[in-house]
Amino acid sequence: MKINSLPAYVLLAVLGASGAAQAQNADPAAYVNPFIGTGAVDTNSLSGSNFPGPCVPFGLVQLSPDTRDNPDDPASGYDYNDHSIVGFSHTHLSGTGVADLFDFLFMPYTGKVLWDPGKNPGEGYRSAFSHTEEKASPGYYSVQLQTWDTRVELTATAHAGMQRYTFPSGPRPHVIIDLDHTLDKKRGYWSCKIISAQIRVVNDHTIEGYRVLTGWSRLRKVYFRAEFSQPFIAQALLNGRSVVEGGTIANGTRVKAVLDFNASMTAPVLVKVGVSTVSLDGAAANLESELPGWDFDQTVANARAVWNRELSCIEATGTEEQQRIFYTGLYHAFIQPNNIADVDGSYMGTDFARHKASDGTLYSTFSLWDTYRAANPLYTLVQPARTAGFINSFIHQYQTYGYLPIWQLWGDETYCMIGNHAIPVIVDAFLKKIPGFNYQEAYDAIRGSSMVDHPGSPFRYLNKYGYFPEDKQSQSVSLTMEVAYDDWCVAQMARALGKSKDFDYFTKRSQAYRALFDSTTQFFRGRNSDSSWVSPFNPLDYGGNGGSPYTEGNAWQYFWYVPQDVPDLIRLVGGRWVFADKLDTFFNLQAKPADVNGNASGFIGQDAHGNEPSHHTPYLYDYAGQPWKTQLYAARIMQELYNDKSSGYAGNEDCGQMSAWYIFSSMGFYPVNPASGVYCLGSPQLRKAVIHVGAGKTFVVLAPKAGGKNMYIQSVRLNGKPYDKTYLTHDDIMAGGTIEFTMGDMPNRKWGTDLSAAPPASAFQ
Amino acid sequence: MKINSLPAYVLLAVLGASGAAQAQNADPAAYVNPFIGTGAVDTNSLSGSNFPGPCVPFGLVQLSPDTRDNPDDPASGYDYNDHSIVGFSHTHLSGTGVADLFDFLFMPYTGKVLWDPGKNPGEGYRSAFSHTEEKASPGYYSVQLQTWDTRVELTATAHAGMQRYTFPSGPRPHVIIDLDHTLDKKRGYWSCKIISAQIRVVNDHTIEGYRVLTGWSRLRKVYFRAEFSQPFIAQALLNGRSVVEGGTIANGTRVKAVLDFNASMTAPVLVKVGVSTVSLDGAAANLESELPGWDFDQTVANARAVWNRELSCIEATGTEEQQRIFYTGLYHAFIQPNNIADVDGSYMGTDFARHKASDGTLYSTFSLWDTYRAANPLYTLVQPARTAGFINSFIHQYQTYGYLPIWQLWGDETYCMIGNHAIPVIVDAFLKKIPGFNYQEAYDAIRGSSMVDHPGSPFRYLNKYGYFPEDKQSQSVSLTMEVAYDDWCVAQMARALGKSKDFDYFTKRSQAYRALFDSTTQFFRGRNSDSSWVSPFNPLDYGGNGGSPYTEGNAWQYFWYVPQDVPDLIRLVGGRWVFADKLDTFFNLQAKPADVNGNASGFIGQDAHGNEPSHHTPYLYDYAGQPWKTQLYAARIMQELYNDKSSGYAGNEDCGQMSAWYIFSSMGFYPVNPASGVYCLGSPQLRKAVIHVGAGKTFVVLAPKAGGKNMYIQSVRLNGKPYDKTYLTHDDIMAGGTIEFTMGDMPNRKWGTDLSAAPPASAFQ
Repeated sequence: MKINSLPAYVLLAVLGASGAAQAQNADPAAYVNPFIGTGAVDTNSLSGSNFPGPCVPFGLVQLSPDTRDNPDDPASGYDYNDHSIVGFSHTHLSGTGVADLFDFLFMPYTGKVLWDPGKNPGEGYRSAFSHTEEKASPGYYSVQLQTWDTRVELTATAHAGMQRYTFPSGPRPHVIIDLDHTLDKKRGYWSCKIISAQIRVVNDHTIEGYRVLTGWSRLRKVYFRAEFSQPFIAQALLNGRSVVEGGTIANGTRVKAVLDFNASMTAPVLVKVGVSTVSLDGAAANLESELPGWDFDQTVANARAVWNRELSCIEATGTEEQQRIFYTGLYHAFIQPNNIADVDGSYMGTDFARHKASDGTLYSTFSLWDTYRAANPLYTLVQPARTAGFINSFIHQYQTYGYLPIWQLWGDETYCMIGNHAIPVIVDAFLKKIPGFNYQEAYDAIRGSSMVDHPGSPFRYLNKYGYFPEDKQSQSVSLTMEVAYDDWCVAQMARALGKSKDFDYFTKRSQAYRALFDSTTQFFRGRNSDSSWVSPFNPLDYGGNGGSPYTEGNAWQYFWYVPQDVPDLIRLVGGRWVFADKLDTFFNLQAKPADVNGNASGFIGQDAHGNEPSHHTPYLYDYAGQPWKTQLYAARIMQELYNDKSSGYAGNEDCGQMSAWYIFSSMGFYPVNPASGVYCLGSPQLRKAVIHVGAGKTFVVLAPKAGGKNMYIQSVRLNGKPYDKTYLTHDDIMAGGTIEFTMGDMPNRKWGTDLSAAPPASAFQ
Repeated sequence: MKINSLPAYVLLAVLGASGAAQAQNADPAAYVNPFIGTGAVDTNSLSGSNFPGPCVPFGLVQLSPDTRDNPDDPASGYDYNDHSIVGFSHTHLSGTGVADLFDFLFMPYTGKVLWDPGKNPGEGYRSAFSHTEEKASPGYYSVQLQTWDTRVELTATAHAGMQRYTFPSGPRPHVIIDLDHTLDKKRGYWSCKIISAQIRVVNDHTIEGYRVLTGWSRLRKVYFRAEFSQPFIAQALLNGRSVVEGGTIANGTRVKAVLDFNASMTAPVLVKVGVSTVSLDGAAANLESELPGWDFDQTVANARAVWNRELSCIEATGTEEQQRIFYTGLYHAFIQPNNIADVDGSYMGTDFARHKASDGTLYSTFSLWDTYRAANPLYTLVQPARTAGFINSFIHQYQTYGYLPIWQLWGDETYCMIGNHAIPVIVDAFLKKIPGFNYQEAYDAIRGSSMVDHPGSPFRYLNKYGYFPEDKQSQSVSLTMEVAYDDWCVAQMARALGKSKDFDYFTKRSQAYRALFDSTTQFFRGRNSDSSWVSPFNPLDYGGNGGSPYTEGNAWQYFWYVPQDVPDLIRLVGGRWVFADKLDTFFNLQAKPADVNGNASGFIGQDAHGNEPSHHTPYLYDYAGQPWKTQLYAARIMQELYNDKSSGYAGNEDCGQMSAWYIFSSMGFYPVNPASGVYCLGSPQLRKAVIHVGAGKTFVVLAPKAGGKNMYIQSVRLNGKPYDKTYLTHDDIMAGGTIEFTMGDMPNRKWGTDLSAAPPASAFQ
């Protein structure tokens, strides 16, 4: 069913059947503020790196304004603190730390001539704008371009964007199409280079073209077809400084087209652009399939209806600000992974060859080091069918590339970050019995990716030394600990499939972190292949992405990374009291060296919520019998490090992970071990949340006094009965039911303090 | 019909039906010496840039030894003057001035360990060899690797290569597969860069992989599947300095595999490798289709049978050396253009998208600035069906890229050289009534390519100024003159199709050279946009590929380039006597400046037969009533500048053009205007040539006294009647018949001297 081609009233009727149309929250999109995460408070802070422009959930196209000519940071191309816009491009990453995409920038402007001969051809069309004349909501964006007195409105479908330009009367209207707008290739950022590009004038309403480029994604082929609602009366094609007036085709690496419209027209100029990763025919078919007509407002309504359907999977009730943070987070979590396949299922695979997906989907943009922690567990809860789609796309990479995705962008492995965290995603989905993928193929993939050496994962060293020696493989502490977790996940699936030899093998490897525990310093510390400790050692010292045993963090932050066996970590450090004391120190120690990694931000003591290594840490008090401290720090993070403004995140939003942390935490629970089926209880901030868990069931979270100073759990009832455990299981949630929190402003130092109430290693054992 | 899958006796029976099996010359392949053109006499000379390894006519695979690690010059990767071999790669260019391809280098070697830890991984396998232990013939190559005491034999089909390694008894045999062997990327030559590569161990007999790279061709995706006749007992995969013993997959940019075979084996190791531009599946299907078995000798026999079928289109009788030059030339002419489509017709098009050819062919490697002169006219004569295939591939580029190929490599436009010389090829084929392509589409393509500005062809300047001004577009004299010729060709097709307006337009533009004739210096000379002459001016000064009005030549060499209207050139310069006198000076003026362009070689006076601008010049005396001088210089070039050794060409062989010049000239005629259907008579060197012109007809050239000092025509009879014209028409040849030359060692200064005997502008008017 092609949702976008249906009128809104049909859509609503269709969607109503899925239980989405709840009286209390029929328009959750109203709470989405797409400007959240689009700008940092100041230049010392990180932007969320989100973009404000329209898209539909998990779609290929994200049509959004770019304030940067050659984006780098923020990676979204848009910074809320900027004051001018260079144009509107059709593809964007949401929340990443690395930039790419920005395909097919369009920009309307006005003036006497097509371009100013005094400037470089195709430059000088940047416009001032003001946030007071800018609006964004799911599926819609508008801005007044002050320099050109022109209003731009944007909307999108899965494979296409539509723009509406309202030009002033008087000056001659122009539109430039810029195929040279990329990440910062002037600096050689990610060796970005346009290999070839083309713009062709098909007729006086239609432009098509493509570009082939290498960048963060090592090879992208992107095709477009643009149709205008009005004819252009003249055009010039540009390649660098070469300009051909009246030209009909341009090939090159710096290709642009300038179109000239009739100054006497009164109606706005609309343009709709289909995008494909496969071919020009694919772009045209995508456009025809999703945007056959010219009804801009209906397209906006359709996009909003689709968003409302998706966002209504959870009904959240809290303060207006909480609901804005919550639903914007859910919106950000549903922007990606992106289906890069054409409407007919064609796509370019990880082997750079063309394939065809029988179900029409090939998802990509897998920021797994971030998202496996909470975003993927969120998908298993409210997007189970798409979770299967993600895993099928993982398996495609395994089968063509030899190992599962690490960070996959537009079908290409970028090797960004460490570990093989498609493994917990797969194992989690398997243990939660999500259908739609082949379990044996999936097991082959997780096992193979844990056995076959590949960049960042030289298992031969792990197998030989029992850990990754820093002199053989940098980031060795972080890698040893994260791979140990992945190995634990493989072992769980091995056991479930009766593969006892594999279970033993991976269970043993999952304990590799022990070899790096330095009892003298009481930290996990890098070792060389001769077993010597890496010296000098200071637990405050930061690593980045190589050259240190720690990845985007320090020994303090990585100390806590044994989600598969927190009790063992507690034992290692000397018991629950020492462990809790160390956590206390962690959340209070202010000292910072000069070289704090740029991704470490959002500090509470050493805890840096702006980056993922610290995401699970506040919940570890649950394991030590001091759950009120989990409640304290979880609440403080939500209240101090999230807001509903452009500076809403404490760091890069990271493709849904920062948002998913809030979504879970604000409902009072969080998956410390994301493949265990166990959720640690924290501090609910919403007064109510209704999770639609499928089969018509709901799991209701009630916390009527939650928020503000009432950050502490006084008592809990599950399905009406007193509940003293500090965790929930996935089965508890999927069965449907109600958990009711009684909250207060003072800790209840009795509830959940007995270690028998602490979260188990897994709910599936 | 899959020729290669048939046993030889069936093949011969099949081929016999086409009239190929002539008693006198059943094995013309015996005259082919693949070493011709593989090395220059000394370092001051140019190599032909040919390669000695096996291929089949117009095939995708050319499996050949490389003596250079990162080839640059000679572009074939093999220099006969080198003394060692680095390996055997599957794709090569024949005779070009620019290097690319070299995909999938294999090299056998022996030793105790897989690689020497003291060296970089995967290096150190180069071997000494001697030409005395090296053999090559069509479809076969063998060499003794002295360093490894190992014999290597090679053969090929259209999409696959087969190798046979005979290892010594004793040391352990290894084979390295090197996916990092490219043109000289260390120097950044053509910005060559491997974007991604993969090697996968499928099983103990099979390796597959691919590489995606940018280089001279801006994007190539090349896939392979290699099957071994014996299992390898161990393997290591390498990526740069990283080595994984026992690894089963490696992705990276510097990927190699080292295989280890059983030292006790006695049989040779065979490996067959299928290649595809589309996918791994394509490579496997190509291999299975063409090389299902393991019969190396039969594969050699099949390849030779195919070559004999193709080479028997002309039966040449002369001295042994002449026949070797002639048939090796025909062999070189038939190596390319190459069908890059898979056996199922799939290919990556000029738009970088995948397409499928209904007839299974997509030809590429179009070195048109070279080949339109004589190689393409040769194809129209003896390869009419393939000529239609070439043109359909041209039209594919026009339709996807906006203009016809200039220099197309593996489907990608490289913009090498100047002009749009697909136009004469198309017009020639059209005027010769070659079927198999759509004449209207073809006309749209030649007209569009002559109207739409594109790199190297900014027609707006030509239209505005009447010539290309040097201050707007460099190489302006060469470009103005060559485009004038292309325009004349467009005009001829326009007239034939009744498009009189186009005829007038392009006829006028075809006279643009006149605007650059400087009556003071009596040369064609660069002008700026203000109509001033480019100064200073010295007709001996050379240009290269930019920065001068002349392309790879000087004003002397470019003076003669008005093939569409030689009588007008004669008028411009002052009449036949002045013209002939200028030709005399040209062929005798020895002066050379210090900066002679590297491509200008093979000098007789200013005539540089080693490069294409001088190819038609000797034949111009025919137009001035002094045909005996055409005979003199044509004979001198054949006798002095061609031989049957490695130094057999006076310059780069250029994808068949240098060979086609000899093939025509040695039969006594040459197409000065390659789209006119007129062949100027020269000095036949063969005693007899029988051209199979189709429909069972033959055109026989007899010159029983030809050769050596008998370079002068005394008289001619055509079909038994005295013939006093200095040209033949295409219709004369296609009608079948006999031309008989009576040759002698003194000029006949009466024959052909009347201007009424001179070649007309076209035989089609």
